[in-house]
Amino acid sequence: MLKDEDDRSYCQFMAKTDTRDKLLQAGLEVLHRQGFNATGVQEITDAAGVPKGSFYNHFDSKDLLALEVVKAYAARNAEKRKQLREGSGSALNRLRRYFDSLNRIGEASEYSRGCLLGNFAAELSAQSAAVREGVQGAFDEWTTLVAGVIAEAQRDGSVARDVPAKVLASFLINAWEGAVMRAKAEKGAAPLNEFMSVTFKKILT
Amino acid sequence: MLKDEDDRSYCQFMAKTDTRDKLLQAGLEVLHRQGFNATGVQEITDAAGVPKGSFYNHFDSKDLLALEVVKAYAARNAEKRKQLREGSGSALNRLRRYFDSLNRIGEASEYSRGCLLGNFAAELSAQSAAVREGVQGAFDEWTTLVAGVIAEAQRDGSVARDVPAKVLASFLINAWEGAVMRAKAEKGAAPLNEFMSVTFKKILT
Repeated sequence: MLKDEDDRSYCQFMAKTDTRDKLLQAGLEVLHRQGFNATGVQEITDAAGVPKGSFYNHFDSKDLLALEVVKAYAARNAEKRKQLREGSGSALNRLRRYFDSLNRIGEASEYSRGCLLGNFAAELSAQSAAVREGVQGAFDEWTTLVAGVIAEAQRDGSVARDVPAKVLASFLINAWEGAVMRAKAEKGAAPLNEFMSVTFKKILT
Repeated sequence: MLKDEDDRSYCQFMAKTDTRDKLLQAGLEVLHRQGFNATGVQEITDAAGVPKGSFYNHFDSKDLLALEVVKAYAARNAEKRKQLREGSGSALNRLRRYFDSLNRIGEASEYSRGCLLGNFAAELSAQSAAVREGVQGAFDEWTTLVAGVIAEAQRDGSVARDVPAKVLASFLINAWEGAVMRAKAEKGAAPLNEFMSVTFKKILT
């Protein structure tokens, strides 16, 4: 009897996390593809294959799902970030490989999705304080990571020290975001190639 | 009698262009502040102070209003562009003054609006081919203008010729767009200041 009860509560727990995870994954996919305000809760529950009513058992609002989506999106490229931090080769080579690998992400969709962080910053900053702060936090963490590797390149002499690593990192992440946004407007890779060219000829030198 | 008819048709013509202009101005204001998908036609007609029914006499769809809004927005900074092209001082000084003046636009709204072109690129590129192409065209014209002034600075020796002026211009406009987007996420000017610092220490030199 005790065992049965344990099983049942374990199964209920699993079903609950499973539905939440499905909503999160579907939310990430749909919100990245078509944006926040163009997407209804029903589209997300349909994409997740769960009843519409179940949404509010897991998220109090679409805003709060979007905030979790920001965290899941930022966590998604953990392997790329690990390679940037501790992969083989010089800091400068790792930075080049890192941005190269980010640039390839959009190829399959003709760059039509853009970066979810940039999309949400543009669409939601004025609308949702929670999402705005989530996006800001993700950008800050990302900047700290890139700044650490630029500082390493400054220590080994491959990047000049005339501008602080943190400023260079912030500038480059924003420039990359702008290039991704322009690639979305052009449906082409030219802005990303220009980003690589100017970054490694003029900035990280 | 003839005169009366002339008057009447002149008045009807004036009323028509007047309503269209009100819708365009209100559309620019509201769509810039809160984005495309968060805004209904009714909000635009309310802001314009015209009956909702009159919208479709002037624009076949919200998409087509947005396309006209892109054109009106791009035309709005004509004086800044004229100063960049033919103002006093060296090409490099004019570029610095130009980006400085663009950066000040967002101050009053705590950078919460961003650039309408960047906002629409992020929100609408995948949704509306017409708006995407309008935004792309506005970016292309802007790039050509800035490239011309960078080429002037390359000719007078104040900017190195190792990267083509067109590539530098495109990179800088995208980097500026990314900085504006980040300023929107942060509600602060730091990204714009970093843009100026890196641009004039590392890129336009």
